[in-house]
Amino acid sequence: MKEAIRIIGIDPGLRRTGWGVVETLGNSLRFVASGTVKSDDKTDLASRLCQLHEGLSAVLHLFMPHEAAVEHTFVNKDATATLKLGQARGIAMLVPAQAGLSVAEYAPNAVKKAVIGVGHGEKHQIHMMVKVLMPKATFDSDDAADALAIAVCHAHNRQSYLGRGRLAAIA
Amino acid sequence: MKEAIRIIGIDPGLRRTGWGVVETLGNSLRFVASGTVKSDDKTDLASRLCQLHEGLSAVLHLFMPHEAAVEHTFVNKDATATLKLGQARGIAMLVPAQAGLSVAEYAPNAVKKAVIGVGHGEKHQIHMMVKVLMPKATFDSDDAADALAIAVCHAHNRQSYLGRGRLAAIA
Repeated sequence: MKEAIRIIGIDPGLRRTGWGVVETLGNSLRFVASGTVKSDDKTDLASRLCQLHEGLSAVLHLFMPHEAAVEHTFVNKDATATLKLGQARGIAMLVPAQAGLSVAEYAPNAVKKAVIGVGHGEKHQIHMMVKVLMPKATFDSDDAADALAIAVCHAHNRQSYLGRGRLAAIA
Repeated sequence: MKEAIRIIGIDPGLRRTGWGVVETLGNSLRFVASGTVKSDDKTDLASRLCQLHEGLSAVLHLFMPHEAAVEHTFVNKDATATLKLGQARGIAMLVPAQAGLSVAEYAPNAVKKAVIGVGHGEKHQIHMMVKVLMPKATFDSDDAADALAIAVCHAHNRQSYLGRGRLAAIA
């Protein structure tokens, strides 16, 4: 008998990092938990990165996922915003890697395609489909809902992703 | 009698992160050590961030600095490069913060001003002045030399930086 694979999806952000844990077994998909790790924007950057690291580490210890997935976002707003996202993203990838998990990366259109069937769509469509796919799913923020969508995307793509030896992000 | 303050300067990069440790007591400045933490570009991003974390953690355990400083760089090349730098920079700031150190941030022109006296100048001028200020200094890469310059900058500015409660990077 095959065992269910537990996946954590992470949507990184300096202010709010969303996370969502799902279980997949064959074609079935089960919601486990989701939430948001926040950093205190009144403190300095290094301390905020520490807060994200501590929060995500606690989530990993609590739910013990087998694999992790992070969205491969490009922010084209400005260099400052991209640098900020990069710093949070560094922590989001470090924590599962330190726990020995493989960390998959997916482009936003791959996440949309996995959840709503096409490579484009509004945020609320993604959140609605997360609820359709996992009726018991709850999320306390948009970031947590996005993180669940990333976990769902990896549940759909993990066979081909792991088969390719994680050499490149799925576009 | 006052005790010497040991400072680590870090020049973050995904491929190579330079580090330099100096000691300051009043107006005196002493070279302690410098080096480069490399990540294996044949492995995946999460593992590379782990390598940077492990390497920098080892340096901190070995040299036990009291304070840390990181350059506040803006890369205007492209969003991909900025995101990469941000990820490495996240780790570079996390490691000293996890060790309980304050982490100062300095803009590149502040580093140049502290080392060569003016806010502009070529890389080789900075490296030359690092050798003038600390004749015993050695460095195995440009990144290690840059990291030493960042440590020197913090040695010159730490009083005013800490006095301001680390609310903003020195421009």
